[in-house]
Amino acid sequence: MTDTPQAAAEEQPTGELTTRTMAMPADTNASGDIFGGWVVSQMDIAAGIAASQCTMERVVTVAIDSMTFIRPVKVGDVMCVYTRVLRIGRTSVTLAIEAWALRHRFGIREKVTNAQFTFVAVDDDGKPIEIAEEQRAKLNNA
Amino acid sequence: MTDTPQAAAEEQPTGELTTRTMAMPADTNASGDIFGGWVVSQMDIAAGIAASQCTMERVVTVAIDSMTFIRPVKVGDVMCVYTRVLRIGRTSVTLAIEAWALRHRFGIREKVTNAQFTFVAVDDDGKPIEIAEEQRAKLNNA
Amino acid sequence: MTDTPQAAAEEQPTGELTTRTMAMPADTNASGDIFGGWVVSQMDIAAGIAASQCTMERVVTVAIDSMTFIRPVKVGDVMCVYTRVLRIGRTSVTLAIEAWALRHRFGIREKVTNAQFTFVAVDDDGKPIEIAEEQRAKLNNA
Amino acid sequence: MTDTPQAAAEEQPTGELTTRTMAMPADTNASGDIFGGWVVSQMDIAAGIAASQCTMERVVTVAIDSMTFIRPVKVGDVMCVYTRVLRIGRTSVTLAIEAWALRHRFGIREKVTNAQFTFVAVDDDGKPIEIAEEQRAKLNNA
Amino acid sequence: MTDTPQAAAEEQPTGELTTRTMAMPADTNASGDIFGGWVVSQMDIAAGIAASQCTMERVVTVAIDSMTFIRPVKVGDVMCVYTRVLRIGRTSVTLAIEAWALRHRFGIREKVTNAQFTFVAVDDDGKPIEIAEEQRAKLNNA
Amino acid sequence: MTDTPQAAAEEQPTGELTTRTMAMPADTNASGDIFGGWVVSQMDIAAGIAASQCTMERVVTVAIDSMTFIRPVKVGDVMCVYTRVLRIGRTSVTLAIEAWALRHRFGIREKVTNAQFTFVAVDDDGKPIEIAEEQRAKLNNA
Repeated sequence: MTDTPQAAAEEQPTGELTTRTMAMPADTNASGDIFGGWVVSQMDIAAGIAASQCTMERVVTVAIDSMTFIRPVKVGDVMCVYTRVLRIGRTSVTLAIEAWALRHRFGIREKVTNAQFTFVAVDDDGKPIEIAEEQRAKLNNA
Repeated sequence: MTDTPQAAAEEQPTGELTTRTMAMPADTNASGDIFGGWVVSQMDIAAGIAASQCTMERVVTVAIDSMTFIRPVKVGDVMCVYTRVLRIGRTSVTLAIEAWALRHRFGIREKVTNAQFTFVAVDDDGKPIEIAEEQRAKLNNA
Repeated sequence: MTDTPQAAAEEQPTGELTTRTMAMPADTNASGDIFGGWVVSQMDIAAGIAASQCTMERVVTVAIDSMTFIRPVKVGDVMCVYTRVLRIGRTSVTLAIEAWALRHRFGIREKVTNAQFTFVAVDDDGKPIEIAEEQRAKLNNA
Repeated sequence: MTDTPQAAAEEQPTGELTTRTMAMPADTNASGDIFGGWVVSQMDIAAGIAASQCTMERVVTVAIDSMTFIRPVKVGDVMCVYTRVLRIGRTSVTLAIEAWALRHRFGIREKVTNAQFTFVAVDDDGKPIEIAEEQRAKLNNA
Repeated sequence: MTDTPQAAAEEQPTGELTTRTMAMPADTNASGDIFGGWVVSQMDIAAGIAASQCTMERVVTVAIDSMTFIRPVKVGDVMCVYTRVLRIGRTSVTLAIEAWALRHRFGIREKVTNAQFTFVAVDDDGKPIEIAEEQRAKLNNA
Repeated sequence: MTDTPQAAAEEQPTGELTTRTMAMPADTNASGDIFGGWVVSQMDIAAGIAASQCTMERVVTVAIDSMTFIRPVKVGDVMCVYTRVLRIGRTSVTLAIEAWALRHRFGIREKVTNAQFTFVAVDDDGKPIEIAEEQRAKLNNA
């Protein structure tokens, strides 16, 4: 809600850049800002890509926690979503997700939301399956 | 993820029916199920309507917590979103949101997700404002 | 076209609430109001849900009659579609559909459109089939 | 619903070709055919273009009558909408609209829907206005 | 970029009218004009229809050349895409594509873009196939 | 059209990663692949972001050249668009754009399209303006 670019500029994104897209007029809500549902959708896509890559399996979202909307996203902003794996369990993986808005042409980059997403690895019928030991080991040794 | 219609059928939605929409093919993800981002979008819309009605102000989403995806939503399902105000603070309101899928033509209704959404009342510039005492009193006396 | 909330407020929706959705900026026409095609789409979805539930079959729209656009729908309105079965024939069902706009946050509810929709029950190849006698009886005895 | 290309091929579209678009996967309903709401949307756009051109005013849809869905539209069909002005009143104009599907690559053209649309000429505030005499005369002398 | 309707009005579209659609608010970019990607999409759809009709095969786009954006497209414009086959090779076909905007209600028609599109005929697995001699002969004798 | 992942894997993207998005079912064409218009749209967005950042001005697309579609994009692919400024003129900038598909979960990355995009810097009325000397110098000294 607050808007202090100087302070924000000092903070740095955490994690790996996973998606980067421009917010378009078709994505606005009735107030003219970018619709919160669009922001969550982009975070879910990025989190799903990262979860799928670190488990090497098809995954489905099972939980979202601690999602905080810090500042509105505006039409024309470039939204950058950063992902970081927090932990891998037997069948599930939890990631920290941050979305940053690049206020386009002005070089200002501000964190707009963050959240934790949890996914479960599933087979083709959508039944939970075990994540391969070597994938889990990779993370723990990283 | 589990799918036991009998048990689910005994559970009842909590709160007031706020939105009711059909999930369409344009809303699917790469696996052919309805995209999680679409589901969260519908919950955010419903939560926003309820938050706006109980505060009588324009509101913006500031937090989503404890969102659980229980079962996938399928193309053709009618998604019903129920909303219930949990608490109203000086400038914010928190609601419990449940989404239920009506497996259309077969009369089966199953809870697919639930979550808590928090909104802040804002003025036309997006600055937080106090929620009127009478709106807060209405809820506390309900 | 006219806009007299007082008079409108006295009128009540007829039928059962079948869909309830928020009109978004992506749904506008070149004049900035909600596009008529979007309004008809929501009415068709609601009518199809009701037709499918009362016949217990897959249905396809075969006719729309007497559709009247009474007032424009605006961005941010919650559009509520009410459905009422008028008659069930051997293979078809006709419903009266009303759409009401909730002018959100202000508690005003106005009828925006009404129409009659007719559906035919079809098999998996899209060929018309007879509606089960018990479904027809249910309506006639209602 | 029936599908007899030979007979259909003999029939010819009536009116002027006003829009021509391809039906895409994003426009499908839960059964995999093109969603009826999309078809009506294209007819409303075409009717609005024709109504606007013959009145030289901004127009809004006030009524749709006698809309008949003759055959389903499929993904990949080119939908051609033909418009013909039936009558111009003091403030309104009524048009006959036909939609034809070009079953793409096979040269078959079939009527898929027809309907009557009525529009009212409006000023910038959406209030009905009189259609200029010369526009009305043009049609009557045509 | 320039905007001289008088001069433009004297120029005439070349080729056959293949698609005709209205530019809607959902198709805008962050500047409020119609998004260039939407314009190219409509040209690609029209080019694909024409390429498919002249080869009688399924086709895929392999190249776009010399695309020039002459004037912006505005919300409410009717975009008319004209297509003309330039040459048919053994497996490919090249077309000249022009898009014209009808500045709706004012009778002004202006060229907005032009380009060359090349398609390859493919089988159901997407492998290039030869275009039938008779289809090639038709064009050469035209 | 060809599909030789081994060879493709040796090639490396040129330029800076500017957008990264997942191709969704709503973006498909009638053949089930991702619609070419969607691919061009993503390239235009990425090119526009890069052109705007290197000129520090609002820009509009004026030309696309030498666009080659090498392989189809599939639902679920992560499309990565790389941008590289080729030259900056007095009012215009030309960029080389490459799109690569990450065949998601399998670690294969293949170039799917490339093209040159040219933009002109414009003022708020859309009139061409000169690009600041210091922006042009930055590129030439890079």
